[in-house]
Amino acid sequence: MNKAFDMRADADIIIKESIAAVLPDEAVAKALKDCDFGCGKIYMVAAGKAAWQMGKAAADILGDKLHEGIVVTKYQHVLGDIPHTKCFEAGHPVPDDNSFLATEAAIEVAKKAIEGDTVIFLLSGGGSALFEKPMITGEELADITKQLLACGADIVEMNTIRKRLSMVKGGKFANICAPARVYSVVLSDILGDPLDMIASGPAYPDTSTCEQAIAIAEKYNLRLSDEAKKCVSIETPKALSGVETMITGSVSNLCKACADSCKRLGYEPVILTDMLTCEAKEAGSFLSAMARTWINNGKSMAFIAGGETVVHLTGTGKGGRNQEIALSAAEGISGMPNVAVFSVGSDGTDGPCDAAGGYADGTTKDKLESAGKKIYDVLRANDAYNALKLTDGLIITGPTGTNVNDVAVLLIKE
Amino acid sequence: MNKAFDMRADADIIIKESIAAVLPDEAVAKALKDCDFGCGKIYMVAAGKAAWQMGKAAADILGDKLHEGIVVTKYQHVLGDIPHTKCFEAGHPVPDDNSFLATEAAIEVAKKAIEGDTVIFLLSGGGSALFEKPMITGEELADITKQLLACGADIVEMNTIRKRLSMVKGGKFANICAPARVYSVVLSDILGDPLDMIASGPAYPDTSTCEQAIAIAEKYNLRLSDEAKKCVSIETPKALSGVETMITGSVSNLCKACADSCKRLGYEPVILTDMLTCEAKEAGSFLSAMARTWINNGKSMAFIAGGETVVHLTGTGKGGRNQEIALSAAEGISGMPNVAVFSVGSDGTDGPCDAAGGYADGTTKDKLESAGKKIYDVLRANDAYNALKLTDGLIITGPTGTNVNDVAVLLIKE
Repeated sequence: MNKAFDMRADADIIIKESIAAVLPDEAVAKALKDCDFGCGKIYMVAAGKAAWQMGKAAADILGDKLHEGIVVTKYQHVLGDIPHTKCFEAGHPVPDDNSFLATEAAIEVAKKAIEGDTVIFLLSGGGSALFEKPMITGEELADITKQLLACGADIVEMNTIRKRLSMVKGGKFANICAPARVYSVVLSDILGDPLDMIASGPAYPDTSTCEQAIAIAEKYNLRLSDEAKKCVSIETPKALSGVETMITGSVSNLCKACADSCKRLGYEPVILTDMLTCEAKEAGSFLSAMARTWINNGKSMAFIAGGETVVHLTGTGKGGRNQEIALSAAEGISGMPNVAVFSVGSDGTDGPCDAAGGYADGTTKDKLESAGKKIYDVLRANDAYNALKLTDGLIITGPTGTNVNDVAVLLIKE
Repeated sequence: MNKAFDMRADADIIIKESIAAVLPDEAVAKALKDCDFGCGKIYMVAAGKAAWQMGKAAADILGDKLHEGIVVTKYQHVLGDIPHTKCFEAGHPVPDDNSFLATEAAIEVAKKAIEGDTVIFLLSGGGSALFEKPMITGEELADITKQLLACGADIVEMNTIRKRLSMVKGGKFANICAPARVYSVVLSDILGDPLDMIASGPAYPDTSTCEQAIAIAEKYNLRLSDEAKKCVSIETPKALSGVETMITGSVSNLCKACADSCKRLGYEPVILTDMLTCEAKEAGSFLSAMARTWINNGKSMAFIAGGETVVHLTGTGKGGRNQEIALSAAEGISGMPNVAVFSVGSDGTDGPCDAAGGYADGTTKDKLESAGKKIYDVLRANDAYNALKLTDGLIITGPTGTNVNDVAVLLIKE
C-alpha cells in the first residue's frame, strides 16, 4: 500500500466529473450528437425544472435549424432569451393557469408539425405539474387531485386517473405531434426511469386501462362531473409510432460517469446498484463493512451505489441523507489509511443545509472524538452537518442545475 | 434468460455445502491435514461450545499418536467418549467450579509437555467462560465482573482486567505449554477473528498493558483484594514463540465455501463483505437494490454478504435477523424471475424459533399479499417467521454444531 494518500482530492475530482456528465446541457448535447433530423422542420418543446437549460443547450446546438420552440419551467428558472423559442414560467408542484397556458402553446406548436418534421421533446423532473392542459376545468382537476390524496390512493392509481383528464399526459402529447417524428430526451429523477411516470409520460405509451381507471373511480367513490366521467372512459395510446426516447441523464448515467472517473484515477470501479433506497446510515454501514473485507485486496477499488436513500428522523439536527451515509461509514473505516466513503446529491443539495453531501475517511472518527462527539449520538440527533463540518467532511457544490438522485462511493486505494 | 428456474433448490445446495465446510470436524480435519508434529508427544486441549466435536475429530485423525487430551465444553455437549481424552462439562456463559476444575486439568496436561512435544489447542466460541482458572477466588472474579458490568466498562476494558486475573487468558496458557510447541486451531464466532478476543486469547499475545489495566481499575474505582491488585500489575505475554495459529472455521471461511458452492452451480460469486453488522432489513433492501441493477446483466451472479446483522425490535412477532433479510429483500425483487435472496445462521438457529434463516424470491411478495400480509407490516411486527412460513420461505437445518455467524446471498440466474 502507498503511504497516506489524499483521498479527499480524489473524491472531489470524482464528484465534479460525475455531476458534470449529467448536467442538462451535457445530457442534451450527448443526445443530439450525430442526430440526423432529415430536411423537415425541427420544433422543440422543453418541460420541467431543467427545461430552460435543456432548451438552451438544444437551441445552441441546432442554431437556425430550430424552427420554433417552447420552454416551460418553474418560476425564476428562465435565465435569458433562447433564439426561436418562447419561454414560460409556471406553477410547481401544483399546476396553475400559466402551466395550462404554456402547455396550450406547446400543443399549438406540435400541431404545426407535419410528416417529415421532428419535435424534440426535452423532459425533466417537475414536468407533471408544469406540462399540463386538463380536458376539464383547472378547478375540477384540483378537486379530483385533492379527493385522490384524501382517500389514500397510491401514485399509480392517481396517475391512472390523471392521465385520462389531461390533453398531454399518458402518451397523448406524442399523438398530437403525429405524424411528425418525436425525439424525446429525458433527464430522469425517478429511480429505474419509469418513462410512463416521469412527468406522467407525455410521449410514452400508457400501460393503464380505462377499466382500471373506472374501477379506481368507483373504489374511492370519486365525485366526477359528466365531462370528467367521459374523459375517464377514453383510452390512452397503447403504442406510439415515430417516437424515440433517450434517457441521457439519470442516476444510472451518474453512476456510469462516476465509474469512468474512478477508473481514470486508477480505481477498479464496481457499480453495486443504481437503485438504492434503504436507510442512509445503514447504507454507510454496509459500505464500511465492504471496506473491512476488501482492504488489502491488492488493488484500488471503487464501489459505487446510486439511488435515493431515506432518513427516519430521530433528532432535530442539521444534515441530509448523503451526509449520514458518510458519517455512518466513518465508524467502520476508522483507522484505515487510504479508504474513504462519500456521498453526494447530484442537485447540489442534501437536506436543509448548504452541503451537497458528506465525506469521511479513516481519520474522521478520531477527529470527532477529539471534539467530544460520538458518531452514534450524532446520527441519533440527525446532526451529520455539524459533525462533518468539524472534520472538513462537508461537500459543497452549490446548486448544479441537474437532479438525477444521489451517488455514494467507497474508495480503497492500494 | 432461462425460463422459470427452481432457485430454492440452488439455495438449499449452497446452504448445505457452505455450512458443511465450517463444521468443527471439517475445520479440524483441514487444519491437521499434512501436519507433521515430529517425534515428540502430542497433547490436545479443546475448549468451547464445539470442543467435543473438535476434540473428537482430532482424536480420530491422530489415533494412537494422541498421548493425552482434555475437552471442556457446555453441559449436555459431551456426546461420548474420546480415546486418550478426559471430557469435562462446565458453566456457560458464567464460569463455575467445573470450568476451573477442567481448566486445572488442562494446565496439568500442558505442564507435562516438554521440548519437542506439541499441544494441539482447539478453540471455539464460549471459551472465555469454559476455559478459565482465576488467580483469585471464583467469588472475587464474579464480583469484579459484576462491578465492571455495572459501571458500563466496554468489552475491551473488561478483557484488559480479566486477562490479568486469569491463569490461562491473554496468552498465558501458551506460556504454560512452553517449551512445547502450541498448534492452535480456531473456530471463530467473532467478526474479523480478533484472536486476542476469542476466548480471551489463551494462546495469543496480549496487546493490552498493565498501565491500561491499572487506569481502568482507577477509572471505575473497582473494589479489588490485595491479590487481585497484585495480578492487575503483572504483565501479560507480549510475544509467544513456538505458537502457530490457524483459523479454519470463521465467517470468512463460510463466505468462501459459499462462493465455491455458487461457482459450482454456475454463478459468478462476489463476496461483498464478511463483516456485515448493519440492520438486517436494510441489508435485505441493499441486496434487492443490487438485484434490480444486476438483473439482465447477461450472467448468473451470486453476491455474498457474511457477518452478523442486528434487529431493532419494533414488534413482538417471531423471527430472526436472517429471516428479516430475506423478507425485506422480497419487496425489491418482487416479480423478478430467477432471482432469490436468502440468509442463514451457520449454527442452525435464527432468533427464538426453529428456523435457521429465510428464503425469498420474485414470487414471495405476491404470495404474502394473497394471504393479506404486507411486507412492511410484517417487518414492523418482527414477524418474519410466520410470513415466510406461508411462502415456504423458512430454512430449517436443525442445530449444526458450528457457529461462525451468518451468510446472506443474492442469486441472479440468467
